[in-house]
Amino acid sequence: MTAPFVIIGGDAAGMSAASKAKRDDPSRDVIVFEKGSWVSYAACGMPYYVKGTVDDLDDLVAMTPETAREERDIDLRTGHEVVSVDRDKQTVTVSRDDETFEQTYGELLLGTGARAIVPPFDGIDREGVFTLRDMDEAGEISDFVETTAPETAAIVGGGYIGIEMAEALTEHGIDVTIFEMLPRTLQPFGAETARTVEDHLREQGVDLRLETTVEGFTGVETVDAGDTVDAVEIEGDDEPVPADLVIVGVGVTPNVELAEHAGLELGPTGAIATDEFGRTSDDSIYAAGDCAEATNVVTGEPDHVPLALTANRAGRAIGATVAGKPTRTGGTAGTAIVKAFDLGAARTGILDPERAREAGFDPESVTIEVPTRPHYYPGATDLSITLVADRESERVLGASIVGRDGVKRIDTVATALHASLTVTELQNLDLAYAPPFSPVWDPVLTAAKVLGGILEK
Amino acid sequence: MTAPFVIIGGDAAGMSAASKAKRDDPSRDVIVFEKGSWVSYAACGMPYYVKGTVDDLDDLVAMTPETAREERDIDLRTGHEVVSVDRDKQTVTVSRDDETFEQTYGELLLGTGARAIVPPFDGIDREGVFTLRDMDEAGEISDFVETTAPETAAIVGGGYIGIEMAEALTEHGIDVTIFEMLPRTLQPFGAETARTVEDHLREQGVDLRLETTVEGFTGVETVDAGDTVDAVEIEGDDEPVPADLVIVGVGVTPNVELAEHAGLELGPTGAIATDEFGRTSDDSIYAAGDCAEATNVVTGEPDHVPLALTANRAGRAIGATVAGKPTRTGGTAGTAIVKAFDLGAARTGILDPERAREAGFDPESVTIEVPTRPHYYPGATDLSITLVADRESERVLGASIVGRDGVKRIDTVATALHASLTVTELQNLDLAYAPPFSPVWDPVLTAAKVLGGILEK
Repeated sequence: MTAPFVIIGGDAAGMSAASKAKRDDPSRDVIVFEKGSWVSYAACGMPYYVKGTVDDLDDLVAMTPETAREERDIDLRTGHEVVSVDRDKQTVTVSRDDETFEQTYGELLLGTGARAIVPPFDGIDREGVFTLRDMDEAGEISDFVETTAPETAAIVGGGYIGIEMAEALTEHGIDVTIFEMLPRTLQPFGAETARTVEDHLREQGVDLRLETTVEGFTGVETVDAGDTVDAVEIEGDDEPVPADLVIVGVGVTPNVELAEHAGLELGPTGAIATDEFGRTSDDSIYAAGDCAEATNVVTGEPDHVPLALTANRAGRAIGATVAGKPTRTGGTAGTAIVKAFDLGAARTGILDPERAREAGFDPESVTIEVPTRPHYYPGATDLSITLVADRESERVLGASIVGRDGVKRIDTVATALHASLTVTELQNLDLAYAPPFSPVWDPVLTAAKVLGGILEK
Repeated sequence: MTAPFVIIGGDAAGMSAASKAKRDDPSRDVIVFEKGSWVSYAACGMPYYVKGTVDDLDDLVAMTPETAREERDIDLRTGHEVVSVDRDKQTVTVSRDDETFEQTYGELLLGTGARAIVPPFDGIDREGVFTLRDMDEAGEISDFVETTAPETAAIVGGGYIGIEMAEALTEHGIDVTIFEMLPRTLQPFGAETARTVEDHLREQGVDLRLETTVEGFTGVETVDAGDTVDAVEIEGDDEPVPADLVIVGVGVTPNVELAEHAGLELGPTGAIATDEFGRTSDDSIYAAGDCAEATNVVTGEPDHVPLALTANRAGRAIGATVAGKPTRTGGTAGTAIVKAFDLGAARTGILDPERAREAGFDPESVTIEVPTRPHYYPGATDLSITLVADRESERVLGASIVGRDGVKRIDTVATALHASLTVTELQNLDLAYAPPFSPVWDPVLTAAKVLGGILEK
């Protein structure tokens, strides 16, 4: 009898793999070890739970443990932590409450995810200081807001989570300050889109402090909650900034310790190296999701893009491969989209000129403002599009879009990246036009026309 | 001195060519002969003028004659009709009021457009019976609605124009009946999308009569307006259907008479045959827009898609070519989008199985219903997506999308068609996800997953 397909981590990658493997090969035993209690939940929905848009944390669960076990026949074990992998014996050691046991595997999938980076700030352990990495913490933040009714909040880090949490907390009437060490927010989106988002955050009342380094959090003894945060200390600044609540969202780091201890190869990004089928340096071990690398479709190089779709897709592909049909995990274009109050911002590919040059390109870029509809049709809003291409080959390298509406059209450029289209080919796409939906030349086409004109010179 | 670049027709194709030629080669004389008085207007906006969304017909004008002449230095002559082309002498004969003159050309562009098909219905000339082919007629319909306050309207033809006009007239409180000869509306959108639109039209109070052939229009003598329409006669039906206003929108036919008389080759669709640069069978004569063919990117065969973007793009490319930089006009995917009350419907590529087989494909298709957002995020609506691919090569052939929101994502499939992606490649696109914008698997990806599963069998 074949040893089971064992999966470490019951989130997007792990549960997608388990479901697909069982569907394609129902006779195969599939065991998932999840150290927490939540499985298969929409982490991207957590800010909207804190905001109040989503009523119940359970609403974020895509598949309950019961469904996994009963309907999909997955041997799902929550509260089980895998503490080591023995590749020679093809076993994992699992810890549960006070006991430890071994489980053999035929194939193993590491879906260990990533964790929030927690810099060594003074006072990081005070009450009221949170990251937002899992459902329990989302619940705690929401409870904290409800029970303590904070008047001020500090968000450390101007990335997705920081901006989504700024919106969520502002919704509760809390005065929000975002602290960002770098000269701008939303690094991967490029300067132009970031500037537009920053102006909008300020219009919405967010106190945005760029190039500001947080040193720590001061606190005050409270009767109910012990040593609770009350302010943020800034480098080179005498006056701490009041904050009844702090969210630290400075990025994530892949959970690679198990892989490392097992002697699996890590890639240049620090995440687990994988081939096009999601296989690690050990043929019977796969890795997927936030702990693993994926191939960037523009550069052809390994990349680490800890986002939901990449995890779901790679997990599903690995499930199919394990069930007998070798399936590529697909590359990543680094496509991302974020809501910032009334704006949407989206990005795909390579926007950073430095990174483009490292990958051997000679980037040229243009940023244009275009309306989403013809001038005569009501409801048009402006989109700002940044488009980047290689001067020599004219290949499209990346794009960023920001505006009140219609930023999902980043998908057109993402598709173009997968197909290695040139600016001329992008410009010649037959995209949909009617006055309620778009100008004759879709904003993406107009950006391509303008960039094409620059490349001709 | 080079003879001028002469353009026949001052609409999308003609004016785009004129503007681009002048911009790239300001010293070149560019003459545009337009037989009417309107130039460069957004024909697709006309239903919204009738509806009242657009206040003034002039709002639909993209470039006024004055701008063309004064700012762009285009020798634009409205009220000038070209009546013949002499290819040996490289001249055109132009009629204006009572005089006729000849004009030599270096290159000639036929941008003669298309005209509404007017079947030989009894009573087609009665007052209150309209097509909607140009700005004058849009003005007349609007005036007629205002002055006669019709209670009932009949629309003959369930295509774009018919459906947009049903919405426009319903907005005025008019009871609208659509008569469609065939078993369904919106032919190019495929049966599934058409059915959804038809259900919605009925919900909106439109009386939709499919498989119903109109024979003619009865009339009544009125004091003010002569012989005015009062009802529609139906084949095999004794009782005429009351109609105070009739719009005939059964399609368009390309204006190819000038080209035919000049001995230029017509293509298999009946429109003017062109090469990839928009050149006709005569090297100095180009054709673009609704009178010309374009290459279908899926079949590689000539196609006739009389839509605005195709016209604008081909005109612009020909302008560049004439100015010295040979530029391809780009192919067409037949991408189209239409608003039908609260629904949007979009399509691209080859949906019709018959047509796919004629082009050498073995089509398989799937239709799925998917929400536009995760279940937990408010405001999700359902999209219905039909995706078609070739069984053997798994190449994507076409798609249709219908729903209240988000149908512009047809552009993702249109881009895939241009790049000849397979269903697996489509499924592996890294599209943008965040809860306010999309489910983790964008509806297009889900459709590709489902179709991929069917093709595997």
